[in-house]
Amino acid sequence: MEFLVEMQVGWPPDGDPEQKKMLIEGEHKRAVELAKAGMLKRLWRVPGRWANFGLWEAPDATELHKAISSLPFYPWLDVKVHPLAKHPNDPI
Amino acid sequence: MEFLVEMQVGWPPDGDPEQKKMLIEGEHKRAVELAKAGMLKRLWRVPGRWANFGLWEAPDATELHKAISSLPFYPWLDVKVHPLAKHPNDPI
Amino acid sequence: MEFLVEMQVGWPPDGDPEQKKMLIEGEHKRAVELAKAGMLKRLWRVPGRWANFGLWEAPDATELHKAISSLPFYPWLDVKVHPLAKHPNDPI
Amino acid sequence: MEFLVEMQVGWPPDGDPEQKKMLIEGEHKRAVELAKAGMLKRLWRVPGRWANFGLWEAPDATELHKAISSLPFYPWLDVKVHPLAKHPNDPI
Amino acid sequence: MEFLVEMQVGWPPDGDPEQKKMLIEGEHKRAVELAKAGMLKRLWRVPGRWANFGLWEAPDATELHKAISSLPFYPWLDVKVHPLAKHPNDPI
Amino acid sequence: MEFLVEMQVGWPPDGDPEQKKMLIEGEHKRAVELAKAGMLKRLWRVPGRWANFGLWEAPDATELHKAISSLPFYPWLDVKVHPLAKHPNDPI
Amino acid sequence: MEFLVEMQVGWPPDGDPEQKKMLIEGEHKRAVELAKAGMLKRLWRVPGRWANFGLWEAPDATELHKAISSLPFYPWLDVKVHPLAKHPNDPI
Amino acid sequence: MEFLVEMQVGWPPDGDPEQKKMLIEGEHKRAVELAKAGMLKRLWRVPGRWANFGLWEAPDATELHKAISSLPFYPWLDVKVHPLAKHPNDPI
Amino acid sequence: MEFLVEMQVGWPPDGDPEQKKMLIEGEHKRAVELAKAGMLKRLWRVPGRWANFGLWEAPDATELHKAISSLPFYPWLDVKVHPLAKHPNDPI
Amino acid sequence: MEFLVEMQVGWPPDGDPEQKKMLIEGEHKRAVELAKAGMLKRLWRVPGRWANFGLWEAPDATELHKAISSLPFYPWLDVKVHPLAKHPNDPI
Repeated sequence: MEFLVEMQVGWPPDGDPEQKKMLIEGEHKRAVELAKAGMLKRLWRVPGRWANFGLWEAPDATELHKAISSLPFYPWLDVKVHPLAKHPNDPI
Repeated sequence: MEFLVEMQVGWPPDGDPEQKKMLIEGEHKRAVELAKAGMLKRLWRVPGRWANFGLWEAPDATELHKAISSLPFYPWLDVKVHPLAKHPNDPI
Repeated sequence: MEFLVEMQVGWPPDGDPEQKKMLIEGEHKRAVELAKAGMLKRLWRVPGRWANFGLWEAPDATELHKAISSLPFYPWLDVKVHPLAKHPNDPI
Repeated sequence: MEFLVEMQVGWPPDGDPEQKKMLIEGEHKRAVELAKAGMLKRLWRVPGRWANFGLWEAPDATELHKAISSLPFYPWLDVKVHPLAKHPNDPI
Repeated sequence: MEFLVEMQVGWPPDGDPEQKKMLIEGEHKRAVELAKAGMLKRLWRVPGRWANFGLWEAPDATELHKAISSLPFYPWLDVKVHPLAKHPNDPI
Repeated sequence: MEFLVEMQVGWPPDGDPEQKKMLIEGEHKRAVELAKAGMLKRLWRVPGRWANFGLWEAPDATELHKAISSLPFYPWLDVKVHPLAKHPNDPI
Repeated sequence: MEFLVEMQVGWPPDGDPEQKKMLIEGEHKRAVELAKAGMLKRLWRVPGRWANFGLWEAPDATELHKAISSLPFYPWLDVKVHPLAKHPNDPI
Repeated sequence: MEFLVEMQVGWPPDGDPEQKKMLIEGEHKRAVELAKAGMLKRLWRVPGRWANFGLWEAPDATELHKAISSLPFYPWLDVKVHPLAKHPNDPI
Repeated sequence: MEFLVEMQVGWPPDGDPEQKKMLIEGEHKRAVELAKAGMLKRLWRVPGRWANFGLWEAPDATELHKAISSLPFYPWLDVKVHPLAKHPNDPI
Repeated sequence: MEFLVEMQVGWPPDGDPEQKKMLIEGEHKRAVELAKAGMLKRLWRVPGRWANFGLWEAPDATELHKAISSLPFYPWLDVKVHPLAKHPNDPI
């Protein structure tokens, strides 16, 4: 089952730059793993914001939550999950 | 450039069933054309609603508007367009 | 997978009483079927409104949408679907 | 009387990990007690968030408030309570 | 248990004046009955609107819903119900 | 003239417990005084929140503001005031 | 006591022009009367909308409601009333 | 003084096509006049909607309102006006 | 040109009392100056809040911004500006 | 392609004045560069707020994001991007 996920990062502007750098690296690494596992299928930047839209696939919301909460930035994230159903006009 | 597009169909519950049927067929046909043209890349039903999320691609917002407004249901649509930027962690 | 579903019925105050009566009967019948199929697990009235919260179970959002859109009142419904994940403190 | 309760935990990302761990343990313990007392009937995680939906039962809003405010995380909670009425189509 | 109830009447400006007059009279009559039954304790007009705040008392949300839905204007009402708990500083 | 007043207390979860205790005592004392003066007529807890609805009476908004801003918790309050008009169906 | 009042006129675009003209004339006439009575002190057009902000004075919300509901356009109005308290820095 | 103006056209999907065509032509003609008068400086389509953002210039809000309300579609418009101040970093 | 301005002061509850006192005095002094200059015409307290509505007059939004940003509390203000047009029924 | 961009600066009122001064200078310098590059075409102050509306031009949302995130104040900005399509009535 696919999910559309919105994420907004609430990292404080005066946060520690070293910790921020490590989190960004960890986030990238974890994203690669989730992509390889077929859970993270697409990811887009919301222009002008430290935020993204993502297309995720997971057996159910429980597995999706595990994946999202495994992201290093999770404690700073504000997340909205939209469940997606199949549409007869979907090109795929 | 990719766009995330939300569409809600405001068709009246007591609308003419014949017109509705024709519009749905026309919508399907137009969706197939837009998919072939590479403009409509994915389409998902919002569960429980006559609404969808779509992943669209267009050179710019002007071309996107032309594509969306070519849909037979356009006069009944409430549409929100989210421009998408590339994300370094996008699996594709 | 469980879903929390909010439904608001937008039936017009001056709607045909006969049609309304038939729809309510059909709705009841369909709800019984969905309950027997294990898809509709609980249903509560929102006090003061022609609206409800429901606890639904479905393999995914696609099946949930089929179930919801099979309700006779579907064309008049405004529906919000909340996907639910398992919680470690859930008594069940 | 049943209530649908939404809880969002506003724990700061840089909060003390030790205190957080103790609060989570205390929360689990208190949830078990409230479940045994028949007040907490179901609990679901909102996917992607440190948040939950719960199905609660209490004689009235005063007793419900006592139960909720007895949770160790209460000072960090943002809570919305929806009173629930019986629905004729409720499967139970 | 007490409830704070907001009601907005959605009567159409070009509605039938005769029906409106009868509904207002019926509403008054029903309000008197509910007051005598101890269910409607206070009622205030929201200034500038065909809307009111009411202080209601009912054993639970199910009984409250029965009372509200017995009002002649019910099909035209947009209602929000706020459950109320006892406050230690309540003068009564 | 009566007013419906909503108050949400924005006291920080890690606020000083001693100050909090003193403020709560002061709040209770001031509430009793305002009740004796006929300004605070009813007070309800919003279940699950450190928040309340109150029924206040004051000659006008200026006097109401004086009363509310005399509460010890005033600097931490987020307050909404709804002016109330008499309703012909008010039981009192 | 002064009130800030926002009014939005919900007159239908295809409404009867004759009735509209009469209502506008009646509205003007009533506004003049309310101004003479000292109840309507200022009135501003919200640019781009059939809407206004008004500065009203009335002994209380009950009298204010009588004044507002005496306007010929009242059945088509969506009104929000903001009670105003005296400010120490008010130039008047 | 410049203003940013958002307009959403609320034309009904089943409106008369002939009237719609005439209004669109009239709108174009009026837009050209307002552009020549220096009041309408830029106009953009909101993609996916029958809506626009416009950059307007007028001596004040009164003149702006006259210009906007002179548009043939005015009775169907939902308009929001944002006053604009000069910014030191404006390239012009 | 007149403007309706809403201001909410976001002063922290644990802010320095001395600084707060000086800012309030400075605010009063500046308000008097702006009133003498004919820019601040009326000012009302929003009851229950550290907030106000003001009626301002300025040649344009640029001058209005200069006046508002000259207030000592400006860095703590959340401000909304509503441009006002003349209304034919304005008593003045 | 043009974009309408809203920016709100979330600089803390008690932020370091020296850092603020440097950021403002850096912001001005970067704005001049972006203007020369043809990316920032207009910039307006939202009166009463540390906020602006800007008219930007960029090949796509990815390039726009690069430009916005190159602003020295970027970590403190809350940004909304509106994609703009061409309008047949645009004077330019």
